[in-house]
Amino acid sequence: MSGSAEISVASFVDGDRLWNRLQDLARFGATANGGVSRLALSTEEIPARAELVRWGREIGLRPFTDEAANLFLRLDGSEPDLPPVLVGSHIDSQPTGGKYDGAYGVLAGFEAVEAIVTSGRRPRRSIEVVAWMNEEGSRFAPGMMGSAVFTGRRRMQDIEAVTDRTGVSVREALSRVLDADVGIERRPLGFPVSGFLEAHIEQGVTLEKHGIPIGIVTGIQGKKTFRVEVVGEESHAGTTPRAVRKDALVDAVAIVRALQDAIWDDKDEVRFTIGMFTVLPNAPSVVPGRVTFSIDLRHNDRDTVVRLGALVQTVCKDATGPCEICCRELLYDEPVAFPETSQRLFADAAAKLGIAHMSLPSPAGHDSRYLHYVAPTGMVFIPCAGGISHNEAESITPEDAAAGARVLAEALFASAQG
Amino acid sequence: MSGSAEISVASFVDGDRLWNRLQDLARFGATANGGVSRLALSTEEIPARAELVRWGREIGLRPFTDEAANLFLRLDGSEPDLPPVLVGSHIDSQPTGGKYDGAYGVLAGFEAVEAIVTSGRRPRRSIEVVAWMNEEGSRFAPGMMGSAVFTGRRRMQDIEAVTDRTGVSVREALSRVLDADVGIERRPLGFPVSGFLEAHIEQGVTLEKHGIPIGIVTGIQGKKTFRVEVVGEESHAGTTPRAVRKDALVDAVAIVRALQDAIWDDKDEVRFTIGMFTVLPNAPSVVPGRVTFSIDLRHNDRDTVVRLGALVQTVCKDATGPCEICCRELLYDEPVAFPETSQRLFADAAAKLGIAHMSLPSPAGHDSRYLHYVAPTGMVFIPCAGGISHNEAESITPEDAAAGARVLAEALFASAQG
Repeated sequence: MSGSAEISVASFVDGDRLWNRLQDLARFGATANGGVSRLALSTEEIPARAELVRWGREIGLRPFTDEAANLFLRLDGSEPDLPPVLVGSHIDSQPTGGKYDGAYGVLAGFEAVEAIVTSGRRPRRSIEVVAWMNEEGSRFAPGMMGSAVFTGRRRMQDIEAVTDRTGVSVREALSRVLDADVGIERRPLGFPVSGFLEAHIEQGVTLEKHGIPIGIVTGIQGKKTFRVEVVGEESHAGTTPRAVRKDALVDAVAIVRALQDAIWDDKDEVRFTIGMFTVLPNAPSVVPGRVTFSIDLRHNDRDTVVRLGALVQTVCKDATGPCEICCRELLYDEPVAFPETSQRLFADAAAKLGIAHMSLPSPAGHDSRYLHYVAPTGMVFIPCAGGISHNEAESITPEDAAAGARVLAEALFASAQG
Repeated sequence: MSGSAEISVASFVDGDRLWNRLQDLARFGATANGGVSRLALSTEEIPARAELVRWGREIGLRPFTDEAANLFLRLDGSEPDLPPVLVGSHIDSQPTGGKYDGAYGVLAGFEAVEAIVTSGRRPRRSIEVVAWMNEEGSRFAPGMMGSAVFTGRRRMQDIEAVTDRTGVSVREALSRVLDADVGIERRPLGFPVSGFLEAHIEQGVTLEKHGIPIGIVTGIQGKKTFRVEVVGEESHAGTTPRAVRKDALVDAVAIVRALQDAIWDDKDEVRFTIGMFTVLPNAPSVVPGRVTFSIDLRHNDRDTVVRLGALVQTVCKDATGPCEICCRELLYDEPVAFPETSQRLFADAAAKLGIAHMSLPSPAGHDSRYLHYVAPTGMVFIPCAGGISHNEAESITPEDAAAGARVLAEALFASAQG
C-alpha cells in the first residue's frame, strides 16, 4: 500500500471495522428515515458516549472528560509528558441529521488510532481521540461550545447559562451527561496540545464533482449569526382590523424580505439562511404576538462578512412595522486559514498512499476553527453524496470513508512523531 | 328593576356570584400572566368540567354528556318532554387565552338559570346550560367541533381522526375526558332543541366605543380557512449555494407576501391572518425543509369570502419557487344571519330592564353558527376592554358581566315559556 520500506500505519486501517462502527454509533438516536437525531447533551448522546468509551477501553485507550463534557480517549506515547496530538470531531447531530456529520471524524480518528495500535508502532507523543461537546448548536446555540471553552475562547459560565427551547440550561444538561460518565476521570478544562486533526464529510459537492476522495482544507469561511425577536400583540383573527393589529408575523415576513434584498448577491457567494423561525402562540385564529428567528450569514471574505453583518441591524429596524424589534448578534467567527504545515501533513500522507487529493476551503464551521487558535490544526474532507448534509439522507461510501481514515492515520502518526 | 307587576327573574341575578365563578373557573389552566391556557380536551379542562358539574348539582341541575363530550346541566321545566332551550358557550381557551372568551357565556347562562331557580318561577320548557367541546380549534383544528357534530354538520368519525401537534387524536383525547366524567349520564348525540342563546364578550371595540353594555348580534361573518404545506429540502446553511437550495422558508415568505398583495383591501374590511407558521427542522444552521402555515380569511359579504378564497390556491402556486406546495381548504363557514325573533328576545329583555343596547354583527365565529342551523339562535355581546381577546390580557367589568346575565336571564325565561 505504501512504496516506502517501512510498513505504513495506514495499511492497518480496517475499512469494514470503521464502516461497522459508523453504523453502530448511528443506532443512538436513529430516526425512522435512516438518519440520526442525537442533540447535544441529550439522552440519546449518553449511551453513544458510553459506547465510544467501551470501544476505546477494548484497545487500551484511557477515557477522560472535562467539565464541558468533551470526551477524550488517550493512547500514551513513548514520551507521555509531551503535549498530545488530538484527533476527532463531534458526535452530536442536528434534529434530523445524518449518520456521518461529526461521527465520521470521531470514528475515522478512532480507526486511525486502532491502526497505529495494531501496527505495533509506538508514537512519540500521546494521541487522544476527542468528541467535542455540542458542535451543532441546534439545541443550545451557538454551537462548538466544547471546543470554544477548551481553547479559552468562551467561558464556562457563559455557555452554562444557555437554555434550550424547553428551558433546560447547558448547566443542567451537562450535569446529567457527566453524572452518567461513571468511572471516567475528570481533567481540568484545556491543556497544551501539539496539534489537532479533524476528518469530516465535505457537506458540499466539490470532491464529488471532481471525483476525488480526499480534500485538504485550506480554511473556514467567516460567519455571523443573529437572533431577531419581533414583539407584537396577540389579538383575535376574526375581529381585529389590520390597521390596529401588531402582527408579529407580518412584520417578520417584511423583515425577511428586506434582508433578502440587502444580502442576496448575484454571484451566489454569500450563504444567508433563516433556519429557525418560531411563532407564538402559533394558533390559526390568533394574530401572532411574537416571532423569533435566526440569521446565519457566511462568506469567505472577511470584509464582506463584516459589511453585511453591519447591515443586519439597520435593515431589520427599517423594515419593522408597528411591532417592537430586538436584533442581537450572537456570534462572529472570522474566516480562518489553516497552517501550511498541517495541510502538508495530509498532502504528504495522500501522496505516500497514492490517493488522489485536492485543496478546497470549508464553507461550514467546525471545531477546528477553535483549535486552530491554540495549536497547528488541519482538516481533511471526504465526499458526501450530492453535498447533502444536515439531512437524514446524508450518505458516504465505505471506500471514501476508508481512504480518509488511511490518510488520517498516516498524518496522525507523522504528527505524533514531531 | 322591572316596570312590570311581575317580579323579573333578572332581579335574582347575583353579579358577585357570577364574578366569583368567572374567577374560580379561571384557576383551571391559569397562566402566570393572569390568562388561561385550557386547550380543548386537555388535562386542565377535566377539573373545570367537574367544577361546573358540582356547581350545577348544588342548585339541582342534572349533568349529561354525549360522545362528543359536550356538557349539559339540565333544569327540568313544567313540560319536560318539550324540546329544551339551550344556553351557554364553551370553556376551552386559546394557548395564551383570557378568562372570559367562552367561559363568560357558560357562566352567564349558569347565573341566568340560578336566577330562575332562585326566583321560584318554573319555566315551561326545560333549560340546559351547555359547554360545547373544542370551540377554539387551536389544539384540534378546525374548532366548534362539539356544536358541529351535535347539529349534524360534521360527523363524529371525521372529527375523531383529527390529531394535535403531538399526534394525539380527538378520539384518544375524548376518551380521556369522558372517562373522567364519573357518574354523568351519557345521552345520544344531538336532540331537538327549541332555541339556543349564547352570551359572549364582543372581542371587538364597537360596544366600548359607544359606551353601551349590551350588543344584540345580527349575524356572523363568513370564514374560510386553509392549510398550506411547503416542502423543500433540508441542507447545510454553510455549504449550499442559493441556486441549488430548496428553502421552504424562502418560498413560504414569498407566498405570504403574494397573499397579502392579493387579499389585503384598502377599506380594511377583510380579516386575513396567518396565525400558525411552523418550520422544520427549525434549526439555525439547517436550510428549512418544510413549512406549514394556516390561512384564516373572513368577511361579512358572502361573495367576497368566496372570491378571495378562490384566489388562494392560485396565488400560492404562482408564488412558489423550487419547493413543492400543497394548499388545502379546511373549512368554509358562510355568513350567518340570526333570526329576527331571537334578536327581539334580547332587545325586549334589555328594554324591560332599562339597559342600553345596540345591534352589531359578530366578526368572530361562535358555536351559535352551528346551532342556528337547527334552532332559533341568538347572541348577546358585552364589551371587552380594547377589544383585546385571544390574549391573556382579556378584560371585562363586573357591571357589564352582570348586565349581560340579566338580559340573558330575561330572554332565556321568555324563550322557555314559548
